[in-house]
Amino acid sequence: MQDFIFHNPTKVAFGKNSIQQLATLLPKDSKVLLLYGGGSIKKNGVYDTVMQQLTTHEVVEFGGIEANPEYTTLMKAVELVKQHHIDFLLAVGGGSVVDGTKFVAAAAEFDGEPWDILAKGVEVKSAVPLGCVLTLPATGSETNIASVVNRSELGKKLSFLSEHVRPQFAVLDPQTTYSLPDRQLANGVVDAFVHVMEQYLTYPVNATVQDRFAEGILQNLIELGPRVFEKDNYEVRANLMWNATQALNGLIGAGVPQDWATHQIGHELTALYGLDHAVTLAIVLPQMMRHQRSDKREKLLQYASRVWHLDTSDEEAAIDQAIVKTEQFFQQMGMKIYLHEHNVEETVVRLVPRKLMENGMMSFGERGNLTPKDAELIIKAAL
Amino acid sequence: MQDFIFHNPTKVAFGKNSIQQLATLLPKDSKVLLLYGGGSIKKNGVYDTVMQQLTTHEVVEFGGIEANPEYTTLMKAVELVKQHHIDFLLAVGGGSVVDGTKFVAAAAEFDGEPWDILAKGVEVKSAVPLGCVLTLPATGSETNIASVVNRSELGKKLSFLSEHVRPQFAVLDPQTTYSLPDRQLANGVVDAFVHVMEQYLTYPVNATVQDRFAEGILQNLIELGPRVFEKDNYEVRANLMWNATQALNGLIGAGVPQDWATHQIGHELTALYGLDHAVTLAIVLPQMMRHQRSDKREKLLQYASRVWHLDTSDEEAAIDQAIVKTEQFFQQMGMKIYLHEHNVEETVVRLVPRKLMENGMMSFGERGNLTPKDAELIIKAAL
Repeated sequence: MQDFIFHNPTKVAFGKNSIQQLATLLPKDSKVLLLYGGGSIKKNGVYDTVMQQLTTHEVVEFGGIEANPEYTTLMKAVELVKQHHIDFLLAVGGGSVVDGTKFVAAAAEFDGEPWDILAKGVEVKSAVPLGCVLTLPATGSETNIASVVNRSELGKKLSFLSEHVRPQFAVLDPQTTYSLPDRQLANGVVDAFVHVMEQYLTYPVNATVQDRFAEGILQNLIELGPRVFEKDNYEVRANLMWNATQALNGLIGAGVPQDWATHQIGHELTALYGLDHAVTLAIVLPQMMRHQRSDKREKLLQYASRVWHLDTSDEEAAIDQAIVKTEQFFQQMGMKIYLHEHNVEETVVRLVPRKLMENGMMSFGERGNLTPKDAELIIKAAL
Repeated sequence: MQDFIFHNPTKVAFGKNSIQQLATLLPKDSKVLLLYGGGSIKKNGVYDTVMQQLTTHEVVEFGGIEANPEYTTLMKAVELVKQHHIDFLLAVGGGSVVDGTKFVAAAAEFDGEPWDILAKGVEVKSAVPLGCVLTLPATGSETNIASVVNRSELGKKLSFLSEHVRPQFAVLDPQTTYSLPDRQLANGVVDAFVHVMEQYLTYPVNATVQDRFAEGILQNLIELGPRVFEKDNYEVRANLMWNATQALNGLIGAGVPQDWATHQIGHELTALYGLDHAVTLAIVLPQMMRHQRSDKREKLLQYASRVWHLDTSDEEAAIDQAIVKTEQFFQQMGMKIYLHEHNVEETVVRLVPRKLMENGMMSFGERGNLTPKDAELIIKAAL
């Protein structure tokens, strides 16, 4: 096992009607900016439930944060924070709203050009405190320090990490997911699955807690994922929600090598073609597994055996089957796993490597030995 | 899944030489009381390494905290805290030292008779902040809110819980375990194993994260436990240490029913006969499993299948085998699993239920349907 620091102080309030704990979770006397997305929370009752908890707080609202939150949109929220002297941000939505709120939190206190946080990786030294009410389990953003922001005008989707933007609390009420469309539910399951794979499918370092927990989450997602479409099934939704949080809260990634190459290539596909984040992951991961078959061999075998319960006496066959089973799982979740199924043309093979180079991604993956050329081969296999 | 709050803000610094992060983990300018046990840290170099980190702090020392920390000993430390206006407690040792330090932290700021925290369950409203350097993985105390204290003169071993005594940080350097005697290493593995069982082997509530994580830790302990005796094997010690922390940090116990009957009966055996805590658990748990076979049936089958990989087509045989395998695992760890092997006489059958009644334990277990009479039957089976 590698040395690590693990520290996740986010307080999670999980369960039926946990939104009703909001009033006690929020700092007293804080001036709150409530951030949300396209307005679905106004239709499904979440907005009203949240507002009932905010009667003793001064509240300013900011709606309209996009899936793949847009830099220019978020900068408008930053203005609101400054104008109204906001001292707490409350994100109500899915990973995009939480990610966007994290950027607002950092940008509002940033001394300089906020774009540099993303484009140049300039360190965030403070942020407006934030909390969240999660309505779409997927990204793990609700308790972690990561944020991904899109800037369409430049065709860039970039991320930053900062301990200062970790939510102080996360309210997880699985009932808030009842009104989600199937596409978003499916995206959430696939996203969580690939988050685990990015931290698990690398090379072994004798990290038994991390491996077993990762394998546990993967098995749960495989078992429960296809049931996410069942209407108002609390147990299924609750379990998928908690599995998604555990998939990216730092725990299974502490003390182990991490990959994230699938995400890096996926981000370029989203930036280029506007494909849903999870959709890009379902396209890239299987071909990544094939391309990295040799470097990931030991963990591929462990994955075949422990997650898919395959007989590994014929090692090559077991690896083949594990990759095919992964593809079938994505398809079972409604994903199209080839680019042509999304009408993406062959030029993608040149465009993705070029964009990786533009973004300075000259070497990536858990061994740092993947290059834009490898991305080209992976994309070619995914055509 | 049941509703829950999960919040574990302890910062963990894990790995080789992590003690060298102590200076940055400790609050600046704090006046530190360093608490430790029988002095082994002075022989194995841990004391010196810790003191090198404390050169800019004012430090008062308090050694001599016993395995099963004694109330009267701890109250002497409370006096030191008051006398020297200590504002941070640093526990260096195993679970007993950390538990003892937690009690000192609470008692030093307690308005009233500190014994009432344990004997009457009076709420702790504040505590001196504390951190720890863990040298014996076992109890999970390094990141949780629990503390168990012994008062031999009254024959009582009692516990309390308070968010105020959760360590701010936990330094986990697996190398500090190299000098531990085999008996303590074995105790640690068994203790962690039974902690998981108390939170896992109850009745199913559809908690897939908690179940899979619990099953993962159990499998790891079964695989690695017998290797704990290997000299200076960093990988084995590191993994056992992190598994033991995860076994009782609140994560696998969130949103599920919990048992703790084995611990309650075990505590009485320690109070009566001075048996090591883990030794009592290895004696009680197998008979508890047999006694509760019907109430725990579904989880016993899941345990047989997922942890021991037993064929469950014959359900009764699978449960039988799972219990026997649990016993064999304890024996493999060097545990004697019957009371007569420890020269405990038959009067124990009457004494344990009587002590449970004295301590107000009239109903316990995950369904609250165990009574001192059940404890009598369990103890009889363990003779």
